[in-house]
Amino acid sequence: MGDSDLRFQNRRSVEAVEEGHAFAPRFDDRGLIPVITTDHASGEVLMHGYMNEEALRKTIEIGEAVYWSRSRGMLWHKGQTSGFVQRVVELRIDDDQDAVWLRVDVAGGASCHVGYRSCFYRTLAVGEEGKEHGYRLRFTETEKAFDPEAVYGDVPNPTRL
Amino acid sequence: MGDSDLRFQNRRSVEAVEEGHAFAPRFDDRGLIPVITTDHASGEVLMHGYMNEEALRKTIEIGEAVYWSRSRGMLWHKGQTSGFVQRVVELRIDDDQDAVWLRVDVAGGASCHVGYRSCFYRTLAVGEEGKEHGYRLRFTETEKAFDPEAVYGDVPNPTRL
Repeated sequence: MGDSDLRFQNRRSVEAVEEGHAFAPRFDDRGLIPVITTDHASGEVLMHGYMNEEALRKTIEIGEAVYWSRSRGMLWHKGQTSGFVQRVVELRIDDDQDAVWLRVDVAGGASCHVGYRSCFYRTLAVGEEGKEHGYRLRFTETEKAFDPEAVYGDVPNPTRL
Repeated sequence: MGDSDLRFQNRRSVEAVEEGHAFAPRFDDRGLIPVITTDHASGEVLMHGYMNEEALRKTIEIGEAVYWSRSRGMLWHKGQTSGFVQRVVELRIDDDQDAVWLRVDVAGGASCHVGYRSCFYRTLAVGEEGKEHGYRLRFTETEKAFDPEAVYGDVPNPTRL
C-alpha cells in the first residue's frame, strides 16, 4: 500500500497546483472551501456548500459527503437527519484547487431542506426576457420531493436572512 | 412594461426567501455571492466563481457572465481577453438565495485559464480506492482545448498560492 495516508500537500508553485498530481486544496480565510454537488446521473446541480479541512478529509475517507454547516457551526454528515445520504461517485478539484465538485448518488433523490430535489428550484430570466417579466423568480420544480416538516421536524431552519 | 427595473429585493422572511418569487440574493461579508457555471448542453461544471452586486446586475442585464475577479479586484466580463464569452442560457438561485447557478453556452467551448475545457479537469479517488492509490490526482482531460500562452499572452495568472 505504501503512502496511503490522506495528507493535503503544500502549495509549492502555481505550476504544481495547476498541472500536478498532488492534492493541495486551498481553504479561505474562514478555513472553508466551496463545494458544488451535482447528481451523477442527471448532471443537475443539487446544492452549493462548504467544507473545512476535517469535512473534506472525512468525505474522502468514507466516500459520503460531509460538509461544514456555517449556520450551525458544526460538521454535517449530509443525510444523518433526512436519510438522504450523498454517496460520492466522483470528487474533482479545480485548476487552482480552491473549489470542489462532487458528483453524488443520493439515496431518496432529494438534497434540499425545503423539500425539493435540488436547492436550485427557481430561475430568473435574463436580458430582454427578464426585463419584460419584471425580474420575478419562476419555479422549475412544481412538487416537493418530500415533506420537510415530516423529515426535519424541529431541526432549526438553516436559512439566514 | 411596468416594473422592469432590476432591483434586488429585501430579505423580509425565511418563507419569502425560500418559497417566494422575489429575487433577494444574499452577498457575504466580502460582498460576494458564489457562482457555479455549467455547460448548458453537457451539464459539465466549467468553473466556480464569484459575483458582487454589480457583476450580478450586469450578468442579468446583458445575458453574458460577468464575474468579480478576486485576484485582480475588478469586474471580469468573461471572454473579453480569450474570446470565450459565456452566454447565459439559464440563471438559477438556490433555496436561501446565497448561491447562483449559471447554465451557459460557451463560444469556443473552453472556460479554464489553464487551457482545459472545464476548470475541474482532475479527480481524486475516494474511500478504499483513494487509499489504494495514495490520494493522487488523475487528469480527466488529456488534451488542452486551447494554448493559454497564445490566448492570454502576458495577462498575469490568477492562481494564488
